[in-house]
Amino acid sequence: MGKSLVFSSNIPLRLAHIPRPSFSPFNHTNQSFPQKLNVSWQYGYQRLHLFNEKSTRNLCTKAVLSEIPNQRQYPKVGAQSLGPIPPSQLIQVVETAAKTGAEVVMEAVNKPRNITYKGLTDLVTDTDKMSEAAILEVVRKNFPDHLILGEEGGIIGDALSDYLWCIDPLDGTTNFAHGYPSFAVSVGVLFRGNPAAAAVVEFVGGPMAWNTRLFSATAGGGAFCNGQRIHASQTDQVERSLLVTGFGYEHDDAWSTNIELFKHFTDVSRGVRRLGAAAVDMCHVALGIVEAYWEYRLKPWDMAAGVLMVEEAGGSVTRMDGGKFCVFDRSVLVSNGVLHSKLLETIAPPTEKLKSKGIDFSLWYKPENYQTDL
Amino acid sequence: MGKSLVFSSNIPLRLAHIPRPSFSPFNHTNQSFPQKLNVSWQYGYQRLHLFNEKSTRNLCTKAVLSEIPNQRQYPKVGAQSLGPIPPSQLIQVVETAAKTGAEVVMEAVNKPRNITYKGLTDLVTDTDKMSEAAILEVVRKNFPDHLILGEEGGIIGDALSDYLWCIDPLDGTTNFAHGYPSFAVSVGVLFRGNPAAAAVVEFVGGPMAWNTRLFSATAGGGAFCNGQRIHASQTDQVERSLLVTGFGYEHDDAWSTNIELFKHFTDVSRGVRRLGAAAVDMCHVALGIVEAYWEYRLKPWDMAAGVLMVEEAGGSVTRMDGGKFCVFDRSVLVSNGVLHSKLLETIAPPTEKLKSKGIDFSLWYKPENYQTDL
Repeated sequence: MGKSLVFSSNIPLRLAHIPRPSFSPFNHTNQSFPQKLNVSWQYGYQRLHLFNEKSTRNLCTKAVLSEIPNQRQYPKVGAQSLGPIPPSQLIQVVETAAKTGAEVVMEAVNKPRNITYKGLTDLVTDTDKMSEAAILEVVRKNFPDHLILGEEGGIIGDALSDYLWCIDPLDGTTNFAHGYPSFAVSVGVLFRGNPAAAAVVEFVGGPMAWNTRLFSATAGGGAFCNGQRIHASQTDQVERSLLVTGFGYEHDDAWSTNIELFKHFTDVSRGVRRLGAAAVDMCHVALGIVEAYWEYRLKPWDMAAGVLMVEEAGGSVTRMDGGKFCVFDRSVLVSNGVLHSKLLETIAPPTEKLKSKGIDFSLWYKPENYQTDL
Repeated sequence: MGKSLVFSSNIPLRLAHIPRPSFSPFNHTNQSFPQKLNVSWQYGYQRLHLFNEKSTRNLCTKAVLSEIPNQRQYPKVGAQSLGPIPPSQLIQVVETAAKTGAEVVMEAVNKPRNITYKGLTDLVTDTDKMSEAAILEVVRKNFPDHLILGEEGGIIGDALSDYLWCIDPLDGTTNFAHGYPSFAVSVGVLFRGNPAAAAVVEFVGGPMAWNTRLFSATAGGGAFCNGQRIHASQTDQVERSLLVTGFGYEHDDAWSTNIELFKHFTDVSRGVRRLGAAAVDMCHVALGIVEAYWEYRLKPWDMAAGVLMVEEAGGSVTRMDGGKFCVFDRSVLVSNGVLHSKLLETIAPPTEKLKSKGIDFSLWYKPENYQTDL
């Protein structure tokens, strides 16, 4: 439960607090409740989600106006249209690109680490670059006129293209260098500035147990892991939530603020995990194994794929000040949706304070001449 | 490098700072350096380790007395003797016990989480209890007179036994409840108070990629993962280290102090991971994928297996104040050994401060009448 529901009167309602399933990392179906109800609905884009899931189960109980974390108050980040390329073709290329990069990374994962520090640095750098080159080759072969923003190679391609590919060939470099799970290859493609399709190959397990998992999503088409539809969790209480955050390389005021947020949420939630790979953390929100993730100081290639994955899994995406998010922004809060407002109550005020101190929260970068619907 | 070496004059030496391999999570062998040297050595218990590993490679360079993190200043925590039971028999029962518990946990991992909160609580509690019961059955069938301390069942058996089994049937309960990797089944057996043999089955990967990894060790016999010998890393600089810590349920002064330590080391190291399962974190130090782990407020079943794993992988174990560790203590710092002194420089003073404020750091619990060599 906990989804925001909109009656025909347009008044957002939320059900009264009653015992209900709060953890559903793996499976959201439930056969014992009716799948349809005799109520008049005005549907948002979550119509199918509402009808197919257990969120319908307690609708005959009283609804209370006072509890309103209206999930739909946060603007969608996914593209309204995927443009002229058929969705099936676009996601196929996105997935192939990510898997091709992952093959490069997998070869390096299996290489022994009996090398000097310089040698290790080389291994990491070479893997990063070779993965990006392999991904670029796939993209350019299929769409030679698309614009591409890679972590390693910067911006290339036609600035007049409606499509912008955001590529992180190795997300979680430190984990990779240490053999610590998880890290990932992340590929997201924007249509006129908004995420249209995304794929993330996560490396899980670690030494003697390496494995991969493929996340993918298209705007409006849902999120999937290894081909199975995935959903964010339904947990609607901070004290029952498991959270995750990250701390970037830049140790500025935003970094210190996030240490305070880490402390606060470690105190009031089930725990805050610190895993070290942004795309992975967001996929974990989409998978329903953590309720939310936030971080300051991210780049488009860190976020383009992950935010779409979360939104398509039923979650919400904003900046950490609560503002409308775009992938050129510098901060992100993704959540299962039902918890978003509660989290922002704590996260937005110190973020506003950073802004009032002059910390830069303007767009980090947007390719010159790239036309968007933002 | 970075291992402390003791010449026949008994003066501890450490090599001058020279370029050398700092990351070796997977493989410590190197064929291009001589395996024996023309120097007169006085060996400690690390003799074989020194001779078989790359730490010998730069011994012809100048040694400097001023850089001395003497790893051997920390007393061993592993048992001097495994007692009358043959090591092969003891480790076989320890491994069987851990694997039997893991079978119970694996069944629950695969159960869908489409259950109420109460139902989830039941699943977690039931899994915990059933795993412990399965482990107890193995131990008692093989050694009916041994003393057993279980997280769920408390102390049972013959207090006059020299053997005390410390059992965590599900380490990382919160992760388990959320389907978040990792969690573990941890079984350690003490002989007269010191860890003699240990096995940890770690659940890695998460939904759609679950897998397990078996760590095991006997005192003096080395540490293994899936049957392969494992070694702690050789990283000797904090700024090149990846660390991990935990925050317990009790949010007292020690908890606040550890938030400060988390902040400090996040600032000066490659990062501090927060994964949520003590036995797992210690096994990761033994595996060489993180350099160190520390936590206040632990229990014998959290630590008995993990500390032996680290020590047998070449690492060091102390309390967080730097004092001699025993499994009945309340805090632990485990590291790859070479970093131990440097970490204690930061970790010990605030821990001493906690003691001076009256925070209880006495032994948490030692079974009455249980005879030890401590």
